[in-house]
Amino acid sequence: MHEPLFFKNLGRDIPVLIVNGTKGFADPNFFYFSAIKFGVFEASSMLVKKGGSIVISNGLDSQAAVQAGCNVKVFSSRENMLEIIKKELEGHRDVGINGAKLAIGTYNLLKEFMPDKNFIDVSEDLAVTRQVKTGEEQKHLERACKISAIAYDNALETLKEGMTEAEFQSHLIHELMLNGSGFPYAEPTVAFGENSAYPHYSASGRKLKKGDIVLADFGATCNRYVADVTRTVVFGRASKKQKEMYETVREANKAGIKAVRAGVNGMKVDLAGRNIIDSTKFKGKFIHGMGHGIGLEIHDHPGFGPTSQFVLKEGMVMTIEPGIYLSGFGGVRIEDDVIVGKTSAKVITSGSRKDELIEVS
Amino acid sequence: MHEPLFFKNLGRDIPVLIVNGTKGFADPNFFYFSAIKFGVFEASSMLVKKGGSIVISNGLDSQAAVQAGCNVKVFSSRENMLEIIKKELEGHRDVGINGAKLAIGTYNLLKEFMPDKNFIDVSEDLAVTRQVKTGEEQKHLERACKISAIAYDNALETLKEGMTEAEFQSHLIHELMLNGSGFPYAEPTVAFGENSAYPHYSASGRKLKKGDIVLADFGATCNRYVADVTRTVVFGRASKKQKEMYETVREANKAGIKAVRAGVNGMKVDLAGRNIIDSTKFKGKFIHGMGHGIGLEIHDHPGFGPTSQFVLKEGMVMTIEPGIYLSGFGGVRIEDDVIVGKTSAKVITSGSRKDELIEVS
Repeated sequence: MHEPLFFKNLGRDIPVLIVNGTKGFADPNFFYFSAIKFGVFEASSMLVKKGGSIVISNGLDSQAAVQAGCNVKVFSSRENMLEIIKKELEGHRDVGINGAKLAIGTYNLLKEFMPDKNFIDVSEDLAVTRQVKTGEEQKHLERACKISAIAYDNALETLKEGMTEAEFQSHLIHELMLNGSGFPYAEPTVAFGENSAYPHYSASGRKLKKGDIVLADFGATCNRYVADVTRTVVFGRASKKQKEMYETVREANKAGIKAVRAGVNGMKVDLAGRNIIDSTKFKGKFIHGMGHGIGLEIHDHPGFGPTSQFVLKEGMVMTIEPGIYLSGFGGVRIEDDVIVGKTSAKVITSGSRKDELIEVS
Repeated sequence: MHEPLFFKNLGRDIPVLIVNGTKGFADPNFFYFSAIKFGVFEASSMLVKKGGSIVISNGLDSQAAVQAGCNVKVFSSRENMLEIIKKELEGHRDVGINGAKLAIGTYNLLKEFMPDKNFIDVSEDLAVTRQVKTGEEQKHLERACKISAIAYDNALETLKEGMTEAEFQSHLIHELMLNGSGFPYAEPTVAFGENSAYPHYSASGRKLKKGDIVLADFGATCNRYVADVTRTVVFGRASKKQKEMYETVREANKAGIKAVRAGVNGMKVDLAGRNIIDSTKFKGKFIHGMGHGIGLEIHDHPGFGPTSQFVLKEGMVMTIEPGIYLSGFGGVRIEDDVIVGKTSAKVITSGSRKDELIEVS
């Protein structure tokens, strides 16, 4: 289904070999082109071909590929797998590979077995193709964002003094899955109080106290497509400083979203929000990029930064996530997901929670 | 902490460069050597050195590395990262890499920037080192198995007619995390009825009916160490055929465990169970290997199979997981985790549930 767009972007007709590693190290492009719903597919691979792709599967997972309507060849051993790949590549000297994921050990094995092949890294073309989401992909992402909103609202009801970050994290995951999310792509961040100053914190036994910031960075998945949302509230009454942080981040978030439309340079979106934060006393405390693509990976291409040079295209789905991080005190981040439109951004995350700092009691 | 054992296995003193990819594609060896508790560490790397390892971190994650007591260098850009690595490698011509995980694109970048280096694939030595678990690693795995047992017993109480696989899956994950598990390494398999015939099934909207097999393959994590457990029960009254399948798999599981001890060839453990299944009418229906190592990855080295040639060593932690899979009918698998001892296996998964087929009402 995605082959026509990919080969249009690639600009030539060569087979592309996508190879999975061990469990947890499957190439997302394998699922992008195959649309397989379950299975592990260790050491399995895919030949993405203009005239019809082929899944080369281990015996254990082959049924899932057949169910998904793929053209499947089953291998019985590593040698047999290499034989099948070689046979399917007969008559082709140039073969694409995904240099961003293919392990050097596997590459060397392929090269040794097929010394006549000219392997070409097409990782950029794969990334560029996956940047622009089809209508169906956008629907999966919108659904993932809807589930995320419902789950967060439900999880918030469970907040109580003395609860640990890990407990809130487990309630949040439970609500995501009860409301229709697949298994989350990544561990949600749940940070109370001073821990929210680390953008990539996970969760610990830290207990909730009155006056704590509660930062949660999480997301549902729908058909493997990943939402990425961050919400920040205060447990109890918010201090003046917490409110100032929140209002500054909210303005930066709004400015970022307002800057999004097809044709705009990514740098402009980053700076639209960054300049707001840097014009306050929180200057320099926004320590990461303004956002990134989402799709089959939580950090999909491209990424917003103060020097990024890509141009937004209609159909990209991006996060807008400014934050302020004060070491020892805490952090605030507001992360929304948007679909890039011709003249504006369509916000697909629930907006209701972010206009003012919520005080949860 | 793991460096002395690794360099003893490697048999020479060269620095080893471990490089992470994007989120979800971190090299487990990065956490093996650094013992870092949280963070994403995209594009971050580690120089594993006999005289003291170094983490080369992006700015966003560096605090987590500092907290873990690592020697940390922070890079500001990709060019700066390459500069730091080059400087740290001064005076070394031979540099180890992990060929099983390092992407060819990253390898080419390193090679271009440091053309004089001789990069050597040490993935086998890394895998061999990680196979034998230290006392501390064994404790993490034992704890992960204990949490898994408690969570499963609690989740079983929620089973009721009409519940979907996805609902049971979400309850199981919730119980794992409420009882102290970290975020699960992988999506648990929850298969009802005929779906249990696929060993790598995940979960769907399939509703529970009386007489269904309920197969769950899941595991807690403790300090990133992963338990891997499978339990099979019947909802309602079990049929004669279901009982026969269960009893055969249970005997194969017992025989596999009995065959485990240091010095034994992996093939013998596989065949000890496989021969039992193949001597019944279920011959040929055990369609995967008898088990695999567990550790920082759920499929750690080595793996049991009917032709595997490795020799068990004291301190390896392995799964023993025979199964019978009847397409269109269902499957039974019983998976336990064992620590390899001098004269026998220590079973660290709860044994109470597997001696007879449980009928849940």
